[in-house]
Amino acid sequence: MFKEDLEAYARLVDTYLAQLPWEKNTLTESMKYSLEAGGKRIRPVLALAAAEAVGGDKEAILPAACALELIHTYSLIHDDLPAMDDDDYRRGRLANHKVFGEGQAILAGDALLTYAFELLAQPLKGVTLESQLRVIREVAQGAGYQGMVKGQILDLAAEKKQLTLSEVEEIHRCKTGALLIASARLGGILAGGTEEEILALTRYATAIGLAFQIKDDILDIEGDSATLGKPAQSDLRQEKSTYPSILGMEGAKKELEHKTEEAHKALEILGERASFLHELADYIAQRKH
Amino acid sequence: MFKEDLEAYARLVDTYLAQLPWEKNTLTESMKYSLEAGGKRIRPVLALAAAEAVGGDKEAILPAACALELIHTYSLIHDDLPAMDDDDYRRGRLANHKVFGEGQAILAGDALLTYAFELLAQPLKGVTLESQLRVIREVAQGAGYQGMVKGQILDLAAEKKQLTLSEVEEIHRCKTGALLIASARLGGILAGGTEEEILALTRYATAIGLAFQIKDDILDIEGDSATLGKPAQSDLRQEKSTYPSILGMEGAKKELEHKTEEAHKALEILGERASFLHELADYIAQRKH
Repeated sequence: MFKEDLEAYARLVDTYLAQLPWEKNTLTESMKYSLEAGGKRIRPVLALAAAEAVGGDKEAILPAACALELIHTYSLIHDDLPAMDDDDYRRGRLANHKVFGEGQAILAGDALLTYAFELLAQPLKGVTLESQLRVIREVAQGAGYQGMVKGQILDLAAEKKQLTLSEVEEIHRCKTGALLIASARLGGILAGGTEEEILALTRYATAIGLAFQIKDDILDIEGDSATLGKPAQSDLRQEKSTYPSILGMEGAKKELEHKTEEAHKALEILGERASFLHELADYIAQRKH
Repeated sequence: MFKEDLEAYARLVDTYLAQLPWEKNTLTESMKYSLEAGGKRIRPVLALAAAEAVGGDKEAILPAACALELIHTYSLIHDDLPAMDDDDYRRGRLANHKVFGEGQAILAGDALLTYAFELLAQPLKGVTLESQLRVIREVAQGAGYQGMVKGQILDLAAEKKQLTLSEVEEIHRCKTGALLIASARLGGILAGGTEEEILALTRYATAIGLAFQIKDDILDIEGDSATLGKPAQSDLRQEKSTYPSILGMEGAKKELEHKTEEAHKALEILGERASFLHELADYIAQRKH
């Protein structure tokens, strides 16, 4: 049931992304290469489900939700560059810069980020212009120097250092948390949710963001490369500070449980309409890859 | 007179940029390093003057105008990277990546681009929300895969090739023209100009964009390194196709004159209020660096 719902949301996103009217050239080819690499579409799905959780219409906010996937994709392309994390593979395929070269990979990322804001500013049926401009500001904040980009800077600076729990949490809060929070809020704001509902979605996204990261760290140790689509135990080899390395495996699993509980609790005021978000929180904690 | 006006506009931009509430860290330091490297601020100045040319208030649109300088600065940082044009110097100072390293330079560019859209979505006094969202779409188009980023791709692909005049124009139209046009239109649209006035500004910006590039090519041959702040005759050494290499020096100068005339003509319907824009067109044709 949940799997079908998740796939239905993701299909909506994929269908929208596939019909973008991009003229065919090497730049758009490299943009599409990474955009169509088959991620989980968690950010747009979160936005669509958040819109429904406050009683809104997911179809109406689709362009804005899909913009989040463009931003996520740009960040992956730039993160994989030799000057950054220097990864040759992403989602089991060659990284963008390994196929198109570094210069074009940088530009493909730049173009995806820029296009995301074009999508965020598209006219949306039944959405107030105030809330659309608010969302643009919030997404820029989540993706920018106070959010995702800051997280990547912190991550680069942390390489091969032993970090404390709060340092690790700060990195994740910026690097992945800020955009996830912006995604949930985007759905809530564009769909006309109350401030109380938007706050509930913020708390929920904060909790699942950390839960997602803890689970990632656990999978890196307990998962196998084939299922993960990337080499297992790469954190260990890169001497990264992770939840298991700081809290021990049992401690990390307890923290995952705790965050998942927080996520469920945050949703209480949203009632029945948030059932997919409840299931998403459980899925994040239980996923195998 | 014109120089004083130009400086007054630029000072407005610099003052606004200097008070941005950025927390101090290595990321914001690298963003500021390039932002404060002392460019001519042509894009925001163009936007402010365009707003006045349609009878608007320049102060009211200042955050949006300054966003254009952030986008321009990000593009310079990324263009200078080893994987792109591989320039060690910019405006007489070390390029961003030579000071902060490649990884951080990429991220500083990403953060500047992202922050530009946060500024574009700031509440502006007396500006309709419709026109603000329209401007965000247009700036994204001018800066993105159909505009500036496409221009950089074309430029990379053109290295050491002999190009035709129309190929050179296509590169400039994308690489610098698209954002200049977006800048002039931004001012016109946010200040509530009529469609006819916005079209006049578009024609004007198209003409001065090409004039600027022709003059750049001429200066590269006739200027000296000290005045230019970069090595003279670098186009020649890089075997770049330029206006003088295609049209000859006399032909290039004639084309510059022709474009400047077009710029003046486009402004006719705007009357007296466009006097600064007239002078700006002459300045572009006559500047020494």
